[in-house]
Amino acid sequence: MTGWPTGLASPSWGGDYNPEQWPEHVWKQDVELMRRAGVNLVSVGIFAWARLEVADNRFDFGWLDQVLDLLHDGGIRVCLANATASPPPWLTGANPDLLPVRADGVRLSHGSRQEYCPTSPVYRDRAIALTEKIALRYGEHPALAAWHVNNEYGCHVSRCYCDRCAGVFRDWLRARYDLDGLNRAWGTDFWSQHYSSWDQVLPPRVTPTLPNPGQVLDFARFCSDALLDLFCAERDVLSELTPDVPVTTNFMANWTFKALNYWHWAAEVDFVSNDHYTRADDPERHIELALSADLVRGLSRGEPWLLMEQSTSAVNWQPRNFAKLAGEMRRNSYSHLARGADGTLFFQWRQSRAGAERFHSAMLPHAGEDTKVFREVTQVGEEYGRLAELVGSTVDAQVALVYDFESAWAAEQPAHPVAFDYYATVLGLYKALWQLGVTVDVVPPSADLTGYRLVVVPALYQVTDDEARWLEDYVRAGGHALVTWFSGIADENSRVRLGGYPGAFRDLLGVRVEEFFPLAEGDTAKLTGGLSASYWSELLHANGCEVVSSYVDGPLDGVPAVTRNVFGEGVAWYLATTLDADSAVTVLSDVLAGAGVTPIVSAPPGVEVVRRRGERISWLVAINHTGADVVLPVEGVELISGVDTAGGLPVPAGGVAVVREV
Amino acid sequence: MTGWPTGLASPSWGGDYNPEQWPEHVWKQDVELMRRAGVNLVSVGIFAWARLEVADNRFDFGWLDQVLDLLHDGGIRVCLANATASPPPWLTGANPDLLPVRADGVRLSHGSRQEYCPTSPVYRDRAIALTEKIALRYGEHPALAAWHVNNEYGCHVSRCYCDRCAGVFRDWLRARYDLDGLNRAWGTDFWSQHYSSWDQVLPPRVTPTLPNPGQVLDFARFCSDALLDLFCAERDVLSELTPDVPVTTNFMANWTFKALNYWHWAAEVDFVSNDHYTRADDPERHIELALSADLVRGLSRGEPWLLMEQSTSAVNWQPRNFAKLAGEMRRNSYSHLARGADGTLFFQWRQSRAGAERFHSAMLPHAGEDTKVFREVTQVGEEYGRLAELVGSTVDAQVALVYDFESAWAAEQPAHPVAFDYYATVLGLYKALWQLGVTVDVVPPSADLTGYRLVVVPALYQVTDDEARWLEDYVRAGGHALVTWFSGIADENSRVRLGGYPGAFRDLLGVRVEEFFPLAEGDTAKLTGGLSASYWSELLHANGCEVVSSYVDGPLDGVPAVTRNVFGEGVAWYLATTLDADSAVTVLSDVLAGAGVTPIVSAPPGVEVVRRRGERISWLVAINHTGADVVLPVEGVELISGVDTAGGLPVPAGGVAVVREV
Amino acid sequence: MTGWPTGLASPSWGGDYNPEQWPEHVWKQDVELMRRAGVNLVSVGIFAWARLEVADNRFDFGWLDQVLDLLHDGGIRVCLANATASPPPWLTGANPDLLPVRADGVRLSHGSRQEYCPTSPVYRDRAIALTEKIALRYGEHPALAAWHVNNEYGCHVSRCYCDRCAGVFRDWLRARYDLDGLNRAWGTDFWSQHYSSWDQVLPPRVTPTLPNPGQVLDFARFCSDALLDLFCAERDVLSELTPDVPVTTNFMANWTFKALNYWHWAAEVDFVSNDHYTRADDPERHIELALSADLVRGLSRGEPWLLMEQSTSAVNWQPRNFAKLAGEMRRNSYSHLARGADGTLFFQWRQSRAGAERFHSAMLPHAGEDTKVFREVTQVGEEYGRLAELVGSTVDAQVALVYDFESAWAAEQPAHPVAFDYYATVLGLYKALWQLGVTVDVVPPSADLTGYRLVVVPALYQVTDDEARWLEDYVRAGGHALVTWFSGIADENSRVRLGGYPGAFRDLLGVRVEEFFPLAEGDTAKLTGGLSASYWSELLHANGCEVVSSYVDGPLDGVPAVTRNVFGEGVAWYLATTLDADSAVTVLSDVLAGAGVTPIVSAPPGVEVVRRRGERISWLVAINHTGADVVLPVEGVELISGVDTAGGLPVPAGGVAVVREV
Repeated sequence: MTGWPTGLASPSWGGDYNPEQWPEHVWKQDVELMRRAGVNLVSVGIFAWARLEVADNRFDFGWLDQVLDLLHDGGIRVCLANATASPPPWLTGANPDLLPVRADGVRLSHGSRQEYCPTSPVYRDRAIALTEKIALRYGEHPALAAWHVNNEYGCHVSRCYCDRCAGVFRDWLRARYDLDGLNRAWGTDFWSQHYSSWDQVLPPRVTPTLPNPGQVLDFARFCSDALLDLFCAERDVLSELTPDVPVTTNFMANWTFKALNYWHWAAEVDFVSNDHYTRADDPERHIELALSADLVRGLSRGEPWLLMEQSTSAVNWQPRNFAKLAGEMRRNSYSHLARGADGTLFFQWRQSRAGAERFHSAMLPHAGEDTKVFREVTQVGEEYGRLAELVGSTVDAQVALVYDFESAWAAEQPAHPVAFDYYATVLGLYKALWQLGVTVDVVPPSADLTGYRLVVVPALYQVTDDEARWLEDYVRAGGHALVTWFSGIADENSRVRLGGYPGAFRDLLGVRVEEFFPLAEGDTAKLTGGLSASYWSELLHANGCEVVSSYVDGPLDGVPAVTRNVFGEGVAWYLATTLDADSAVTVLSDVLAGAGVTPIVSAPPGVEVVRRRGERISWLVAINHTGADVVLPVEGVELISGVDTAGGLPVPAGGVAVVREV
Repeated sequence: MTGWPTGLASPSWGGDYNPEQWPEHVWKQDVELMRRAGVNLVSVGIFAWARLEVADNRFDFGWLDQVLDLLHDGGIRVCLANATASPPPWLTGANPDLLPVRADGVRLSHGSRQEYCPTSPVYRDRAIALTEKIALRYGEHPALAAWHVNNEYGCHVSRCYCDRCAGVFRDWLRARYDLDGLNRAWGTDFWSQHYSSWDQVLPPRVTPTLPNPGQVLDFARFCSDALLDLFCAERDVLSELTPDVPVTTNFMANWTFKALNYWHWAAEVDFVSNDHYTRADDPERHIELALSADLVRGLSRGEPWLLMEQSTSAVNWQPRNFAKLAGEMRRNSYSHLARGADGTLFFQWRQSRAGAERFHSAMLPHAGEDTKVFREVTQVGEEYGRLAELVGSTVDAQVALVYDFESAWAAEQPAHPVAFDYYATVLGLYKALWQLGVTVDVVPPSADLTGYRLVVVPALYQVTDDEARWLEDYVRAGGHALVTWFSGIADENSRVRLGGYPGAFRDLLGVRVEEFFPLAEGDTAKLTGGLSASYWSELLHANGCEVVSSYVDGPLDGVPAVTRNVFGEGVAWYLATTLDADSAVTVLSDVLAGAGVTPIVSAPPGVEVVRRRGERISWLVAINHTGADVVLPVEGVELISGVDTAGGLPVPAGGVAVVREV
Repeated sequence: MTGWPTGLASPSWGGDYNPEQWPEHVWKQDVELMRRAGVNLVSVGIFAWARLEVADNRFDFGWLDQVLDLLHDGGIRVCLANATASPPPWLTGANPDLLPVRADGVRLSHGSRQEYCPTSPVYRDRAIALTEKIALRYGEHPALAAWHVNNEYGCHVSRCYCDRCAGVFRDWLRARYDLDGLNRAWGTDFWSQHYSSWDQVLPPRVTPTLPNPGQVLDFARFCSDALLDLFCAERDVLSELTPDVPVTTNFMANWTFKALNYWHWAAEVDFVSNDHYTRADDPERHIELALSADLVRGLSRGEPWLLMEQSTSAVNWQPRNFAKLAGEMRRNSYSHLARGADGTLFFQWRQSRAGAERFHSAMLPHAGEDTKVFREVTQVGEEYGRLAELVGSTVDAQVALVYDFESAWAAEQPAHPVAFDYYATVLGLYKALWQLGVTVDVVPPSADLTGYRLVVVPALYQVTDDEARWLEDYVRAGGHALVTWFSGIADENSRVRLGGYPGAFRDLLGVRVEEFFPLAEGDTAKLTGGLSASYWSELLHANGCEVVSSYVDGPLDGVPAVTRNVFGEGVAWYLATTLDADSAVTVLSDVLAGAGVTPIVSAPPGVEVVRRRGERISWLVAINHTGADVVLPVEGVELISGVDTAGGLPVPAGGVAVVREV
C-alpha cells in the first residue's frame, strides 16, 4: 500500500454515489442525509462517461462541479472515478469493433455495461483522454480523496475472442515462448495440434470438443494481463498528473469471480479495494465473507484495505434475492473491519429508480429514511466515529493459507476426474479454521512464510518447480504444512507431473498416489477415528509417512486417507479426501495443536474474534453470529459503548463489540 | 364484436382442415365423416401458401375450388385462411433478408413454420398480394363464413433483431418520445447508456450482462405493434374487398404465450378467436382453461367468441404428451361454451401422416373412426345441435379481474427480487375464485367497472398515474378491491415509484412496504388465523388499514401480511404474500362476502357452474370435474337430455349439463 | 470379414501408442514394458498428421521409422494409422472453409480434434495424399499388421451445415428422389414447406420451431453416408497400394454414439473394430458392454472382431470419472472376448502428460509400473497367451435381436409422444435376456433369420413394407417374435402408417392400438399376473390375439398390455408397455420357453457364460460379476489355470474362467 484516501480520520463509511440519476434538488438532500448517516466517503462518477462526454469530444462537467462542491461543503470526501467503466453509445455505435466478441464469434451489443474489448485501441485512447480531462479538472478539488479507475474490470467481459485479441495474445505468447517452447508447453503433439507458424495460434474459440488445456490456461493469463495493462494505462495518467492522489480500482476477490490474477493486480494499485456480496442462500455466508476479507488483506500484503462495495440488504442478481436480516449488515461490516478493512462502503448510496439494478438495495432505500436499512446504516455510521483509533492497524495471524488464481484456471477445466470448484474447495477447509477461532493470512505461492507456524495448501493444482521447493524449504526448516488432494498435480502449463501424485509434493508428504477414486454424488466414505468424507478418495501408498486415518470400507478399505510426515525439522500433513465439516475440525484441531497454534480467545462456536494490532496497542473485534448472548474472557474498554469489560465482554446475540485490550 | 361466421345456427363444431395433405379421394370421405360428427365449421388453407402459389406468381387454386365446393355441398361452413402463415421456400430462398434474426445475430432458416421477419416489406407485399388473390377468388363462395388471417401471430417469432427492425423500432420510439424523453423513460443515466442521437438506439441484442429494462419493455410493445400492423394490413385487404365477411385471427391467450398485447389486438378483429391447449401434467388444468376462457371473453368485451383450436387428446409439444381421459375433451368443450364461446374447434380434423405435428391428436385419429376420440367428437357434435338457443348469449359476472400483458413483460424481466411468472400468479388467485364458484370477467386496466362488486388486481406491476387513479376512484365510490404484492411498483417505463411499495397504491391500501423479503424455495410462512403462505413476504407497515392477518414467526414476526382498508365509500384489501391454496380460499371468501358476491349456485367443490344470459332467458352450464355424481339445486330443462330438472339437476361424475332456467 | 491383422497367434492385447508425445528415450522403455505386459499389437500414429507433415508438403517420417523398427524388434505388431484424424493447424489455418459449421452458422475453430467438414475437397485431397505417402513408406514394413483409417469418424463432428454440405446433400437427395418424390417423402404439404426447385432444399439449420422430420432423417442418412464416402476414399488408397494389408476404422457401436449407420459401414471394412467405454455410474454397466459386444459381432456378421479401445480404469469425459474396481477391467476384457472379440486393446498405452485426455487412464499410468492398473494389464496379457486356440472361433446364439440405427434417428426426434432413447430401450429388454443367460445375435432388419428360434424387435419405429413382410414371413414359417411398442409406427420417411398402431405389425400381432397413453414420470402401472410397468401404455384392442396380461387400474383398466398371437406356424408376442426389470424377466422367460430357447448353462444370476465354437471344439467363457464364488456344472479344461474341471468349474467372486469343453 502506497496510499490511502486522504482526509479521513475514522473508518470510511459511505457508498457509490450516482447523482446523475437524480434531479438537482435531490443532491442537497443527499448530502444532508449522508451527514446524518455518518458518511465520510463516497465514490462518484463511475458510470458517468455518457453524461460527462455527452457526444464525441463534447463535454459537460457543470453538474459534477456542483456535486463535488456540495459534498465538500458537507465535509464528505470523494473517491472520484475516471468514468471509463462503460463507453457511451455514441462511441460504441461509431466503432463497432470496440465491442467484445464471444468464443462463438458473436459480437456483443451496447445497452448494458462494460461493452469494450480489452485490447481495443479506440477504447483505450478515448478512456485515457477522458481520464486526462477529469484529472486536470478535479485533481486539485478539495473534496478529492482518491481516484477510482474504471470498475470491476472483467466482471462481465473478461475474455474477448476477436481477431485483434488473437494478435495481441500471440504477442503475449511470443514474449514468453519460442514456437518450439509453445508447442512443448501446450503439449500440441496431442491431437495433431502442432503449430508450424505463429499465425496459426488462436484464442480457444468454439471447437468440436475439448480444447487444449495449456492454451486455455495461457489465454486466461493473457486476458488478466490485457486488462491489467489497460488499468495501468489509465492509472498512469492519474499518477503523472496528480502524484499525491492515491489510485485504486475495485477488485472482486470473492466467491463470484475468478477471471483476474489479483496477486499481479495488487502490485499496481496504491491501495487495495474490494467488492463483496454475501451468498444469500448460504447459512454460513459470514464465513465466506471472512475468507474473502482475509484474501483481500493478503492482496494488500497485510496493510489496511477498503471495502468498496457491499450491500445493505438484498442484491438483484441471485436466484432469489433474500433481504439481510436485522443486524446482519452491521455484523458484515464489523467482520470486514476486523479483518483489516479501514472502511466499508456500499453499492450504493441511493437506490436507483430505473435501470437494471433498481432492485439492488442501497443505503437509502426506495422507501426512504424511515426504514430498517437506513436506521442500521445510521447506527453503524455513528459507531464508526468512535473507532478512529483502529485506522492503520494490522491483523494478527499465525497461519498462512496459500491461494492461487491460476490453479483455479487450470483445475476447473473440463475433462478432469471431477467437476471442480477451487474457491469452494478452499472455503471448505477455511471453514474448519474459522470454526476453530484461528485467523489466517492468505498468501500467494512463494510468499515469505517467516513467522507462520502453519501453512495450509488447499488444491494447489499447478506449481512450478520453484514453488514446490519453496514449500519443502519451509517445512524442512521447521514449518508445519497441510496439503490437500489435487495439489502439485501439474506444472505451470497444466502438464501432469509423472511418477505418481501429488507429483510435486510426493517427497514432502511421504506418499505416492497411483490412482484417483472420486466418490459418487451423495456417497460417504468412513475413516478410522470416527471420521467421514465424501467427493474424493485416492489409492494412496504411505511412503515413509505416518498414517493418521484410513478408509474402513469400500474399494479403498485400509488405504490411508490422512497422513503426517516428519520432513526435516518440520511436519507435512496430507488430506487425500474431502473431510466432512466435523471431521475437518477434528483433524485441523490436531494439526493446529501440533503446530502450536491457538485461538485468539476461547469463544463459543459461531462467535468470531479477530485481533487488530497497532504500534503499541491492540484491539479485539468480536462478532456474535449466534442467537445467544455470550460473555467473552476479554479485558479492556469496549469502544462502541465506552464500557470497561473488567468482568468479561458481553456480546449480545447477533451483536458486535470492539475492545481496546489492556 | 362486429361480426360472426355466417350461416351457423348452433354452436360451431369442427377444426382446422388441411386437405392439401391428403389425396383427393379422401376429401369426400372427410365431408361425410364431418357430417357424421356434427361438424359445421372448418378452417381451411392456413398453411397452403406453397400449394396455392406454387412458385413465384404461379398459382394453383383448382384443388381448393374443389374442396370448398365439396364442403359447401356437405353443408359445412368455411373459415377460409388467407394462407400467409408460412412463406414458401421459393420466397424465403430468394429473399433471405425476409427471414428473422435472433438476438445473437443468427438468421433463422426455412424448413419449419412462421419464418418471416415482421417488418419485412417483401413478406408483407407478397402476403397482401396473396390475400387479394384469395379474396377475389373466394369472396363470393357460398361456403365462406369468415376469414382467418395468418395464424398464431408471434407464436415462434415474436421478436426479430435485424437491422431493419432496429430502424422501424426507432421510428416507433420517435412517435412516442423525443430523445430526451427516451433517455428519461429508459433511465439511461444508469450505466452510461445515454443516447446522444437516434441512430444509436438498437433492439436489446445480446450484451455483456443485464439489458436496460425500459428498452426491453418498449421493444416488447413495439414487437406486438409491429405484428399488429402486419395483421391490419392483411385484414384491410379483406375488409375492403369483402366488407360483409367477418375477419379474425386466432389468439393464444393462455398459459403458453405472452408476446402480444391482445387488448390492442382485440380491437382490430371482427370477432375474437382463441387457441387453447391444456397443460397435461397439471391436475387442475381445467381451472387454467377457465381463466383463459374468461380472459378471451374479456378481450371480446363480453361478446361471444370462438375457440379456434383445442386438442381432442394429446398434443405433441409438452415434455410428455398425455392423452386426455375419457370425457375430458367433452368437459373442456363445455367449459369454453359456458364461458362465452359460441363454438369450439380443434386442431385439426384429420391427424397428419407426416410433418412435425403428426403425433398431435385430431378429431379423426390415425386409427380412424372406431376410436374413443372420434366417438366423443361425434357425441359432442350431436349435443351441440341441441344448444342452438345459447348462441349469442352472454355471461354473468359480479367480479372483475385486471389482466395486463405489459405487466408481464415488465415484471418477468431478470434482476428482480425473484423469478416471476405473471400468468401463474394470476392463475393462483383465480383458482380460489373458481373454487368458490364465482365467475369473473377479465378486464384491462382502466376498464369500465360499473356493475362489478369487486375488482381483483393481481401483480399489476406497472401502472400509469391514470390507472392508479382509476382504481382509487372505483373504490372511493364504493367499490371493493383486492390488490396483491408486486402491484403498483413501477410506472409505465418500469421506473420504480418511490416512497415505499406498492407505490401507486399506498394510499388506497393504507400500507407502506419498506423492503421485500422473498422466501426460500420450499419455505412456508405461518400467519395468524391459521393461514399459511410461501414464496414472498414484505416488511410492511399498516398506515391506517386494518390488519387481517400477520406473520407469527420468522424475521417478519408480527408484521401484517393481509390488510383491509376502508377508502372513501369502498374497501381495499392487500395481499402482501402468496397464500397457499386453502388460505387463499379462506381470505377470498371473506373478501367476497364483504363485497356481497355470491356463487351462482351452491355446488360441491370441483363442480363448475356458469350462467349464460340471453335477452329474456338464461342458462346454467354445469361441468362435474369430480369422480362423484352430484345433484344441483337448479330448476329448468336440461337441454342435452331434454329432461325437466324439477327435483334438482343430476350431473354425473365427469359429466356435463345445460339447463334453461325457469 | 475379409482380413485380420497379420502375425498374431493369440488374442490381441495392446493399445493406442502415441510416441510423438514422448522423448525418444522413452520409446525403448515402452517396448520393453509392452513385452512385459504381453502386448502384441499397438495402434500407432492416429493423431500424428501435424508431426508427419510438419508444414504444407514438408514431411518428417524419421521418428516414425525409428518407432516402427523398435516395435518390430520387440516383436510387437502395428496397426498403423493413416494419421488423418485431425488436420494440423497449418492446414485449417490456410483453409478456413475446411472447418465444420454448426446448425446456427458458427464455424468451429481448430485447437481440439476432428476439425474438418466431411465434404471438404481440400481436406479429402490432403488426407488422400498423406495416406498415399504413408502407404508407400510403410506398406512393406515388417511390423505392419493392419491399417487404421482416420479415427472414430463423426464422434464430434458428424454433421456439418455449411453451404457446400447443403449442395452435396441435394445431390444425395437427387439420387434418391425427383422433386415430387422429395415433397411426398418429407410431407412438405405440412406447414407450407413444398419445394418448387432443388436449390431451395437445405440442411435442417436453426428454424423458428420444429424441423421437418423427413428432412432431419434424410440428413442423418446423408451425413453417415458422407463420412462413409470419405472413409472409402481413404481406404481405397490403401487397398490399392497394399492389397494384402487389411484395413479397418474404429466404430463406436455403444451407448455413447448414434450418428452413423454401421450396418452400411461394416460392409466396407476388412475387419470390424470397435471402441467401448463403460458408463461408470451404471451398476449394470457390464450388461451394456455385453449388448455393445453382441452388436459389434452382428456388424461383423458373426466373424471375430477387434476391440480397438477400452479403458483400463477411469475415463475423463463423464460427469464423475470413477476408477474401475480391481478385477473389473479383466472382466470387461473377457466379456468382449466371450462375445467374439479376438483381441481387446486400450486407449492408450502410456497415459499422456499433456493435452485434453491426460486424465484418461492408460495401460501404463502416470504413476508407472508399480500400480494396480499395470499389474492387471500384465496379468491379462499373460493369460491371453494361453488362449490362442480361441482365435477365429465364433459365438453360439439362438436368439436374434433387431437393431436399427435409422429407427434411432427417426424415433428420437422432438415432438413425439415422449422423449425417447432408442439404445436405452433396446438395452432395457436386452437386460432381461442377459439375466436369463441367453446369448443373442444382433441383426439388421431383413437379416437372414435362419436358425434363430426367436427374434426380438424392440422399438423398430420405422420399417419399409419389405421389412414388415420379412418379419411376417419369418413368423408365418414357424418363427417366434417379440415386438415392443413404438415398432412399425412409420415408413422409411417417418410418415405414420395409418389405421391404428403398430401400423406395420397389426396383422402379425393381432392387435389394434388407437391411442398412446404415456405414463407420468415415476408412475407405475399394475398388470395382471403380478407384473408392473412404467413410462408407456396404449389403448389397445386384441384383434385375434391372446391376452397375456392387462392393466388392473388407471385409465386403461382391463386393457391388454402383453399379448401373444399365433400367426401361421409361429407366434408373435407384443409388449405394449415398458415392463419393470423383474416383470420383463418373467415375461421373457415364458417367451423363451415357448420358443424352445434355453440358457447355455445353468448359472446363478450375475454370472455371464457365453459359448465360442470352433470347427471341432467349443469353449465356455464365464465371468462372475457377483461378490460370491460359484461353481458351474461345466466339464473340460480351464485354460488359464490349465486345470481339469471334472467336478465342476469354480469361478471366484469377480473372476473369470475359460473352459475347453469336452
